Order: sequence, then C-alpha cells, then structure tokens
Amino acid sequence: MTNFLEEHAEQVGRAAARIKGHVRRTPAMTTDLDPALRLKPECFQVTGSFKPRGAFNAILSLVARGARPPGVIAVSSGNHAQAVALAASSVGVPALILIPEDANPAKVAATRALGAEVIQEGITFANREQRLREVMAERGYVLVHPFDDWDVIHGQGTVARELLEDGPDLEVVAAPLGGGGLLSGTAIAAKRHRPSLKVVGVEPAAADDGYRSWRSGSIQTLGASPSTLADGVRTTAIGKRNFEVMFEHGLVDEVVTVTEEEIAAAVKVAWSRLHLALEPTGALPLAAHVAGKLTEGRRTGLILSGGNANLQTVATLLK
Amino acid sequence: MTNFLEEHAEQVGRAAARIKGHVRRTPAMTTDLDPALRLKPECFQVTGSFKPRGAFNAILSLVARGARPPGVIAVSSGNHAQAVALAASSVGVPALILIPEDANPAKVAATRALGAEVIQEGITFANREQRLREVMAERGYVLVHPFDDWDVIHGQGTVARELLEDGPDLEVVAAPLGGGGLLSGTAIAAKRHRPSLKVVGVEPAAADDGYRSWRSGSIQTLGASPSTLADGVRTTAIGKRNFEVMFEHGLVDEVVTVTEEEIAAAVKVAWSRLHLALEPTGALPLAAHVAGKLTEGRRTGLILSGGNANLQTVATLLK
Repeated sequence: MTNFLEEHAEQVGRAAARIKGHVRRTPAMTTDLDPALRLKPECFQVTGSFKPRGAFNAILSLVARGARPPGVIAVSSGNHAQAVALAASSVGVPALILIPEDANPAKVAATRALGAEVIQEGITFANREQRLREVMAERGYVLVHPFDDWDVIHGQGTVARELLEDGPDLEVVAAPLGGGGLLSGTAIAAKRHRPSLKVVGVEPAAADDGYRSWRSGSIQTLGASPSTLADGVRTTAIGKRNFEVMFEHGLVDEVVTVTEEEIAAAVKVAWSRLHLALEPTGALPLAAHVAGKLTEGRRTGLILSGGNANLQTVATLLK
Repeated sequence: MTNFLEEHAEQVGRAAARIKGHVRRTPAMTTDLDPALRLKPECFQVTGSFKPRGAFNAILSLVARGARPPGVIAVSSGNHAQAVALAASSVGVPALILIPEDANPAKVAATRALGAEVIQEGITFANREQRLREVMAERGYVLVHPFDDWDVIHGQGTVARELLEDGPDLEVVAAPLGGGGLLSGTAIAAKRHRPSLKVVGVEPAAADDGYRSWRSGSIQTLGASPSTLADGVRTTAIGKRNFEVMFEHGLVDEVVTVTEEEIAAAVKVAWSRLHLALEPTGALPLAAHVAGKLTEGRRTGLILSGGNANLQTVATLLK
C-alpha cells in the first residue's frame, strides 16, 4: 500500500471522528431486488444528500487549524449549497452562497432556511466563478469547494468507510461521478479496506468527461453544461485533486456511463422496488446495476448519493 | 402489569426469535422533518411491508406445534398475499391465495412469483369469504388470517419491539389501523415496554370503524368497503382478538382519523422530505403527525407500514 493511500485513508478516519454528531450514520441496507446488493442510502443524510460530510469536515477543519474565517462561501444551486449552509450555521460561521438567478426557488428557500445569505442578483452559470472571486476578495470569505478540496474529499470518504464497516466482505463499490469528490473519497476508503476491492464510478453518458478522463489519462472537459436528468453531476470537468486520487494513483478501477433511459428506469426501480425516493443523480449506481453494467453476482455496494429530486420530474418518470 | 399483557408480550418475544433470519430488522431512523420523530420504515421489510412478520410467525408456529398442514390459504389482493406466499415457500408448505378478479395484475404476478398458487376465477370481494370456506373444506388447508390471529398479532408486535429496543425513550408510538393486526401487536410491545407509553392508531376518516369501535366500546362495522387512498386498511371491521387487545384491555390509548387530503399530503412529505417511497396506508401515522393530530413535541415513533404503492396514484399525488 502506498504512502499516498495510507495518509489519505488516515485523514478519512479523522474526518469520521470530526463530523460525528453533526451527520447521520445512514443504514447499510439489503433489498429484495438482488441479494448481492448492499445499499448506502445517503438520501437519509441530513439535508437529503451526502454533501454535509465534506462540508462539515472542511469547515470544522478550518476552525480546528485556528483559522476561523470571517465567513465561508460556496457556489451551488443544489445539495452542496444546503450542506455548506448547515455546516456553517452549526459551527457558527457566516455562509454566503452564490446561486444562479434561474435556480429552483425551492432550493434557494431551503438554503436560506438553513441560515445562509444567498446572492442571486446578476449571477449566471457563466459568470459565477468570476463573481465568486470578487466576493471573496471583498469579504475575505473562504471558499468551500464542492469537490476539489482535500477536506471535502476526506469527508465524502466517510460514506464508503461506514458501508465497509457494516459490510466488510463487499467486492465492488459503485458511486456517482460528477466532479469526483464522492468517488475519490470512496476510492480512498475502499482501497484502504482491501486493495482488490473494485471501485466503479458511474456518470451519465451525456456528461462523460469523467469516462474520457479515465480513458485518456488526462482531465477532459465538456464544452458546455450537459443536459441530463442527473442534475447533480453537471460539472464540466473533474477536479485536479480528484483526478490525482482516482486516475493518477489508479484508485478507481472503472468508469461506467449510463443513458438517460437507464437513469429514468433506475429512479422508477428505486421507488417501486427499493422504496427509496432518490434523485436521478443518486440513482446512477443503481442504473448501472439494473442495466447489467456492474460485475453481476459479486457482492456490490451502491452509494445512493441523495434524494432531493424535482417532484415534477419524478412524477413524470413514474407514469 | 396484567397477566394478559405479560403473556402476550412474552409471545411477541418468542415471535422475534422465531422469525429472525426470515425477515429484516428495519432501521429506526431520525429525520430533518422533526427531531422528535423516530421512523420505523417497514417499506424496507422483505416484500415491502410489515406483513411477513405475522405470516412467518403463524406458519412457523404451525409447523413447530407439529401440525404441518397440507397447505396454507389466505384471502388478499395486497401485502398479506405476498407475505403468506413468501413465508409458505420458505417453510416448504404450499400456499393458495384467493384474489378477487378485479385486483391489480402486478400484485397477482408478484404473489405468483413468490411461489403461491393463485385462484382468481369467480372470486369477488363479496363472495370471497364463502369461496375460502369451500376451498378449505376441499383441501384441508389452514387459514392464515390477516389480523384476527394470535400468531399474526405476535409477529406484527416485533415491529414496535425493535423500534423500542433502538429508541427506548419514546413517549408515543403511532401505527396504522385497519383490521388491527399491526396496532394490537404494537400495543402489546409498547405497553410491556412502559405502561405510560402512549399508543395511537391512525385510520382514514373514510374508514373510521376503528375509531367508532374505540369510542363505543364494541366492534363497529362499515356498511361497505370504504373508498380511501389507504387501500391497505379497507377492512370493514377490526377483528375480535384485536378488539380484545386494543380496547377491552385498553392497550391502545387513542384512535385518530385523517382525511384523504391529509393522507395525500403525507405521501408527498414522505417522498420530498423523508425520501421514503411509502404507500398511502404506510403514511397514515405521518399524516396524523403532519396534521398536528399527534401529541407534538414528545418523542414519537411512527410505524410506516409499507411501500407497495400504485405508481400511477403516487405520480398524480406528487404533481
């Protein structure tokens, strides 16, 4: 085992201790669908997704290093926004979230309800990175990156760590792949558990930059924000640190892509057979399983990352 | 504590030991919705509802008493059918299920897939009891009643028993009320745990025979099978044994009714806030909570009994 892996796995262990009491230990569940599956439904995590694990670890680590910032900032219209809002208010640090003007009002309201300041005026998907830098310069707030951050990666690794504590004999672990925060944390925890444990990332075929990055050995970028049901993985490229963990160090064995039809089918299976109300992004590993794209018959852990679905979309899928 | 309660609680403990390995221990979950709640989501039970607990206990008890029958029989178009089919095939006893001709074909297929023989020809809601007696006489099969049976009641009591093992400080426990199998088992386990623990049954206002039986002190019957979203509690009267436990011995403190609008709202809350894909019947205790009809602020366990919803119905509710 390399020093790189050992050191990062050690940090995942520290993250687990640090965030305990702030996040939930979600159950590891078996299902009638397939006895070889072990599900880790992070839809039951606080705020409805795995994201608070990384956000709490990042903000608690900042404070523990004696660097209590005047505030933290994040750019997100989704699960990361709510996670940072919750973690900051729990730790007693102001949070500012930049959300594009056209975002879902329900998600904006949920972020504000968790105590964060939200700026939407003049924010677009295109200019948000620049506005972020401006606001950081003005206020001295510290960025909590959604994936390209070691503390965030270590926090997200606690999902697989728990899954493997509850089911140490798993042979395969699959997680969604967007920017790579969850998958790189998963890979660290899984390969530390057993080097032969197969780690699989699942992403929409419509957003296959991760797949192409894995195949080519360098970070590939999508030309534009992709159109996919899995709106939690619309980032146009994986992060530098995530690439380093997943593909430079080879801790991810394979990236599998799934079609929009396969994602839709998985959401329906999740509801009707698993009784889990997953968001499409959270159903990505299930989509790969149902489509026969994971190694069948082997004991497989599926990390189902969240449940904050758009109800209209889901209602249409169920019909 | 009365002998009646002690003896039946002892039987619930025996049922727990007997059915272990055949049913799942479902998690006891906390939720962002209200920190006072503890959820027991039986939608994650094998076959998607709590029903196998009673069915396994009944069939295993029959066999343990040395009375292995030529077969077992049940009348159901829903969760009890699948539960009896699974329990019988696991134990190696033939199962015959009478299902009315107009039942949902998906449920019929699911029951057959679990190894049961299904008779639908000529079976109606009105004549099914008579056909049942005819078939029992012909074949010598033993009835597994859906609720008016001690072994079934003791099996269903294992839900609350587990919930209270995981959360011993609960002050209120609420469960759906149809025929009374689940609620009478719940009441036995809860009152044995702590006599001051409040036990509440929740039923649709459209099917309020249980409420009226509680108020009047005798079994009240609905004139016809009621029209309600909560299709798992359309029985027209509670059972004799269930009445005895719940109201004669006073182990149930209160029956609360909820409107169809409250049930629909609860299904939506279950999906969007709890991320649980519940069937309307399974959401009854949540409906009472959301409507403010349970004692608020006290530590309350909600037994969410199942997840086998009609997808069309749910899709309409989510819109």
